Amino acid sequence: MGMLETLRSVLRFRRFEWNSTKRRLARAANIDDLRALAKRRLPDGVFAYIDGAAEDEITADRNRSAYRNHEFVPRVLRDVSSVDLSTTILGRRVAAPIVLAPTGFTRIADSQGELAVARAALRAGVPYALSTLGTRSIEEVADVGGPDLWFQVYVWKDRELVADMLRRARERAYTTIIITVDTAVLGRRERDVRKGFELPPKIGLDTILDGVMHPGWTWDFMRAEPIRFANVAGSLDVDGTTAITLADYVSDQFDPALSWEELEWFRERWDGDIVLKGIQSVDDARIAVEHGVNGIALSNHGGRQLDGAPPPFELVGPVRDAIGDGAEVYCDGGIRRGSDIVKALAMGADAAWIGRAYLYGLGAGGEAGVDHALGLLTSGMARTMALAGRPTLGELDRTMLRKRT
Amino acid sequence: MGMLETLRSVLRFRRFEWNSTKRRLARAANIDDLRALAKRRLPDGVFAYIDGAAEDEITADRNRSAYRNHEFVPRVLRDVSSVDLSTTILGRRVAAPIVLAPTGFTRIADSQGELAVARAALRAGVPYALSTLGTRSIEEVADVGGPDLWFQVYVWKDRELVADMLRRARERAYTTIIITVDTAVLGRRERDVRKGFELPPKIGLDTILDGVMHPGWTWDFMRAEPIRFANVAGSLDVDGTTAITLADYVSDQFDPALSWEELEWFRERWDGDIVLKGIQSVDDARIAVEHGVNGIALSNHGGRQLDGAPPPFELVGPVRDAIGDGAEVYCDGGIRRGSDIVKALAMGADAAWIGRAYLYGLGAGGEAGVDHALGLLTSGMARTMALAGRPTLGELDRTMLRKRT
Amino acid sequence: MGMLETLRSVLRFRRFEWNSTKRRLARAANIDDLRALAKRRLPDGVFAYIDGAAEDEITADRNRSAYRNHEFVPRVLRDVSSVDLSTTILGRRVAAPIVLAPTGFTRIADSQGELAVARAALRAGVPYALSTLGTRSIEEVADVGGPDLWFQVYVWKDRELVADMLRRARERAYTTIIITVDTAVLGRRERDVRKGFELPPKIGLDTILDGVMHPGWTWDFMRAEPIRFANVAGSLDVDGTTAITLADYVSDQFDPALSWEELEWFRERWDGDIVLKGIQSVDDARIAVEHGVNGIALSNHGGRQLDGAPPPFELVGPVRDAIGDGAEVYCDGGIRRGSDIVKALAMGADAAWIGRAYLYGLGAGGEAGVDHALGLLTSGMARTMALAGRPTLGELDRTMLRKRT
Amino acid sequence: MGMLETLRSVLRFRRFEWNSTKRRLARAANIDDLRALAKRRLPDGVFAYIDGAAEDEITADRNRSAYRNHEFVPRVLRDVSSVDLSTTILGRRVAAPIVLAPTGFTRIADSQGELAVARAALRAGVPYALSTLGTRSIEEVADVGGPDLWFQVYVWKDRELVADMLRRARERAYTTIIITVDTAVLGRRERDVRKGFELPPKIGLDTILDGVMHPGWTWDFMRAEPIRFANVAGSLDVDGTTAITLADYVSDQFDPALSWEELEWFRERWDGDIVLKGIQSVDDARIAVEHGVNGIALSNHGGRQLDGAPPPFELVGPVRDAIGDGAEVYCDGGIRRGSDIVKALAMGADAAWIGRAYLYGLGAGGEAGVDHALGLLTSGMARTMALAGRPTLGELDRTMLRKRT
Repeated sequence: MGMLETLRSVLRFRRFEWNSTKRRLARAANIDDLRALAKRRLPDGVFAYIDGAAEDEITADRNRSAYRNHEFVPRVLRDVSSVDLSTTILGRRVAAPIVLAPTGFTRIADSQGELAVARAALRAGVPYALSTLGTRSIEEVADVGGPDLWFQVYVWKDRELVADMLRRARERAYTTIIITVDTAVLGRRERDVRKGFELPPKIGLDTILDGVMHPGWTWDFMRAEPIRFANVAGSLDVDGTTAITLADYVSDQFDPALSWEELEWFRERWDGDIVLKGIQSVDDARIAVEHGVNGIALSNHGGRQLDGAPPPFELVGPVRDAIGDGAEVYCDGGIRRGSDIVKALAMGADAAWIGRAYLYGLGAGGEAGVDHALGLLTSGMARTMALAGRPTLGELDRTMLRKRT
Repeated sequence: MGMLETLRSVLRFRRFEWNSTKRRLARAANIDDLRALAKRRLPDGVFAYIDGAAEDEITADRNRSAYRNHEFVPRVLRDVSSVDLSTTILGRRVAAPIVLAPTGFTRIADSQGELAVARAALRAGVPYALSTLGTRSIEEVADVGGPDLWFQVYVWKDRELVADMLRRARERAYTTIIITVDTAVLGRRERDVRKGFELPPKIGLDTILDGVMHPGWTWDFMRAEPIRFANVAGSLDVDGTTAITLADYVSDQFDPALSWEELEWFRERWDGDIVLKGIQSVDDARIAVEHGVNGIALSNHGGRQLDGAPPPFELVGPVRDAIGDGAEVYCDGGIRRGSDIVKALAMGADAAWIGRAYLYGLGAGGEAGVDHALGLLTSGMARTMALAGRPTLGELDRTMLRKRT
Repeated sequence: MGMLETLRSVLRFRRFEWNSTKRRLARAANIDDLRALAKRRLPDGVFAYIDGAAEDEITADRNRSAYRNHEFVPRVLRDVSSVDLSTTILGRRVAAPIVLAPTGFTRIADSQGELAVARAALRAGVPYALSTLGTRSIEEVADVGGPDLWFQVYVWKDRELVADMLRRARERAYTTIIITVDTAVLGRRERDVRKGFELPPKIGLDTILDGVMHPGWTWDFMRAEPIRFANVAGSLDVDGTTAITLADYVSDQFDPALSWEELEWFRERWDGDIVLKGIQSVDDARIAVEHGVNGIALSNHGGRQLDGAPPPFELVGPVRDAIGDGAEVYCDGGIRRGSDIVKALAMGADAAWIGRAYLYGLGAGGEAGVDHALGLLTSGMARTMALAGRPTLGELDRTMLRKRT
Repeated sequence: MGMLETLRSVLRFRRFEWNSTKRRLARAANIDDLRALAKRRLPDGVFAYIDGAAEDEITADRNRSAYRNHEFVPRVLRDVSSVDLSTTILGRRVAAPIVLAPTGFTRIADSQGELAVARAALRAGVPYALSTLGTRSIEEVADVGGPDLWFQVYVWKDRELVADMLRRARERAYTTIIITVDTAVLGRRERDVRKGFELPPKIGLDTILDGVMHPGWTWDFMRAEPIRFANVAGSLDVDGTTAITLADYVSDQFDPALSWEELEWFRERWDGDIVLKGIQSVDDARIAVEHGVNGIALSNHGGRQLDGAPPPFELVGPVRDAIGDGAEVYCDGGIRRGSDIVKALAMGADAAWIGRAYLYGLGAGGEAGVDHALGLLTSGMARTMALAGRPTLGELDRTMLRKRT
């Protein structure tokens, strides 16, 4: 029996290393499976960067468990032969109420990086948001196209950097900017601190060993051009030997004095839609509406900033009640299931934002992995709506949920 | 001591492999023990199919934990020398308020399949419900007989298939049909997705190894005729090489447009009792009564359909309060103990439905295992009623329960 | 480092096997440590019999966790130089508000059995209650003496057996009888079912192996006279080959028709104090007072009877409120700490009953182990009272507790 | 792969044993990491003494989890470019609202003991409190200096000992005495009981093995002068062969009759500030204010005294509400994060007291480890205040917290 067990484990190993990406992904039944595949394919430090969150990761955990605390009130014997996920976000038609949220250093997971994600978004018919800290340029992503391209900005002390990016985004038909407001300083992602994660990555005995144990990723990484900030290249002035941490970089470059008044500066330079990402209280949501923003992304940065921040899902209801139709409301953080998205919409969100969910897919199987992740989420939404007896988005409301106590 | 430990583990192994079924079952003190035996005897994929549930299996877990959250208020010094479990279900006398719920592919657990279960039901004096997706025919089960035979129907797009089955069931004296209303689409049972569970089963290196490690089951399986849908044979048109998943089959064949109006179609073709299985809200229970159904099975399909559905036990009280005596109410899902059944009845249910509990028995020891499972449940009920000081079913009411907070 | 770890584990083994009982006990910092020692010294089946409880052992767990859910409100700067635990129980002076509860088959843990426990009770100055199913006779225990001896009765169908025991107890100056009212049928202790625990113990390969691995206990057991019911010897009529389970025995012999009316029968035959053990509801406590009992032991038999029964600690307050000074109230089940006893008294109990706590001591180190267990409990009480700023029993009331939510 | 894993584990071992303290500490991302390092460097018995708590350690656990049960309400787009932690404690300027609490036997963790801690406090600009049971004298610590030195007293039965220490503290410019009021008797720290922890430490096979496995500590310990009580040397009269436990010592020497009236005795001998440490109820806080104390340290001795005492964090709000500005309020116990301190201040505390947090640092890396611990806490405070949008201490109030339910 011991021998049989060994044989089995060899088979398992062989399946991972020799199997095509396609066969690997076919067995990934959900986003957590994609995470497990990504954990296997990516070096430890890279996976920790993607998977980790701030301090004790309590907020990251609660982002997820918040969904579990709400149950459905399923209705039966309703005609659910046709389930429709299509809707509009900020007035533009999309195939599903999902936004692919901006993520920095995306090429760390796969050499195609943001281009892979943008292509998957195009195929899925949903908006893609490029990060300021992206590793593909505004122009490269624009060349991919999509139903709707958004651009996310952190606010540099050097405002000229920001103004320049806005100009480039406008020229290439991005419709929306996202201003991230939860990063006055960088949250402490302690897995990275322990790994000594630095930019550019330090090469040591540990790193090399890590690479050897993850040959697929290493091969992909070594063949590709070096990872760099594609949109703010000049801002990171390192000679390749002096490394700095992300926290130092943020502390050097980002403006912690940013305040509500400065939204005016953006309005003057951007005539498209403006979304604030990182609103975490009802009061700030109200203020945001007073300042005329078009969308509010309830977000705690996936638990990567302030540990102890509340889960966005719990804020959807109160914020929607407080602002009515004053702005669109998005829910970001902890979404791993189509049913999570249905719950967020039922509470009053206009769309769900997806970050780690697609990064796990990207890390697990590149572009095909992102497709797989999006497929899991949209098919999960459709299945949930059918089984809950609410086949259209218009029927998703709070009467379909009950809170567990 | 290491040697003694080894000796012990060899003894344990020997006990399982060489012991007669009877001796194995004698040590199974409860349904969870039967589950452990079934896990040992059945190939992994088969056990996963029986044991698994939808997505994160949260609903399946809550189905069980809901019972734990209620405690008894035991009364003492009452004469409990005679405990009586007999009652009527839908007006017909039964030995205990238990229904053996319909389960598909029952022969996957033991080659006797539905016949073994029906025979056990006969001996126990309780109703048995045959599934449309059963692997023994309406006629074969009717030949077994029983105190009360029921037939469960999924609704095929091809209504003629359904009409035909109703006709056959009526001819063979089935008293009741169960219409399952929670399967507009198939829930995502991710253990099966990961195993690549298909119909007919795909044979690969994994499968063969799985078989070798479970010689008892494999031997039983290889000697028997091939597993097939016994009642809707024509509906699965595969040539043995092109396999399809259960989800694809359901999506192809079942009618997601089924609605309350169609109950009329059934009434016209069935003059016996009609039970709806899969009601999951008070409102739908009310509607069901308005449509004149005879029984309502509160059920989330054992957590195999919509993950996030509420546990049936929590619905018993509210539904009973809402519909009064408008229909019988059954509670299905998560029942592993006689005390669970007592709790369901105390909250207002007329009977408990048992699915996995008997399948574990069937997988653990065939027909004798089903007998053992039923014995555990009925003796558990009797013991609970004696120790709670309520020796008759008529004394089971909400004053004997308190909710833990 | 591996070698050092091995050396350590050898040292640990040596410490247990070669150490004197005294040295072993000295390292037992609490009752759980005694339990661990008992687990090591006793054969698996014996330990399971003592440690196990009914079905899923939920009630046994809750008996303990109920105490954890209450916190102290400690007061400081009060003179606690003198802490006094002495009080009266049923009007008789005792050194502490503790009763050593009746336990069956006590010699299974140590050949001295009930005599060891009675001697420890004598030294500690607290009442000892002998069980009907004891393995030392009424007379043997009376010879030990003590501040107060009680006798527990199950009610045999054959009442003459009971009447005879009452007569013997009266003759030997027992002051109090305990009538156990929670055992109309025997709870299902599934660890025993799995072990196939029978009377007399079945000897098989497993049992022998178990004995070899616990040489200390086996040696003690083999030298002593056979274990037998000392007070109802005639009632178990086995020839040494036909074994029966405890459940069968109880079912054969105990009277499940016992009711409140029969208390009169006891009153006529016993002019001492009468305590009912196994009251589990406020209503039954009220009825007990109406029937003039002297004490009420809130108890679920240590979770060994009805799984799902409420923890006694949670009943103390409501029962005390309901009956006032109508009878003494005792709390039995889950007590492992002096602080647990303080909490029970603060809620309104007159004394705490200890069962498993002393059996663990007995199994860990015989009579000295019982002394050790009692020492832990009383010193724990004194320390708790000092640190809570309530040095006398009279100061223990509900203002010193707060419920955690 | 097995070989690679082995290589990795060797690398990890090498990193710990050969790395400089500085490199070790650099990877310690939080206090729990320091604890892990301390666990590795210190002999088991020493670590258990520092890390352990009373009985089941429930209170110690709750001290920590109490913080987790409160979440922030983060505000955004506020200018947080300047975060200021400086404040006053008892009217004296400090760099942060943190007090390094008194700890006994500090040299057990590192041969520099209290001197290392006092120097770190000096550098961090926060008060340091020397314990009566310290292993460096009042005078030695005074020579280090600091922004503010405090002295903690237990109350010996022999009051002359106490009076003498007060005299010495006054002479060397200590500003504040702390009277510990939660130690009428010593709590039962069961890890120590199991280890047989005695004074002076008993040397046995176990101890020697423990030392060999922790060579860094052992080398440091063997080179240094023997550990002794530096301030009450005469009080422990042992000849090196007769060992006594700490519990016996406390029981012999401390006065359990101490009461509120005796505060007068201290007032007569001490004209500086007086803080009571160990207040655990609102009522006692009120009484303390009536007796004119300057500060109240809500504390359960880090869970080392009465297990079952409430977590100090939960008392901050009620005590502040009850006493208003009658005295300063400090929160002691379970603080491992800058965010914990922010929460305590937001509820109404004037400062947080740190004990184990710095001992873990001391055990992990000596004086540099204490610096590291303090750096983690203050940078954590600043980061939390920036991310919560409350850059000054004056903005920390209850509107920034919400309790999780």
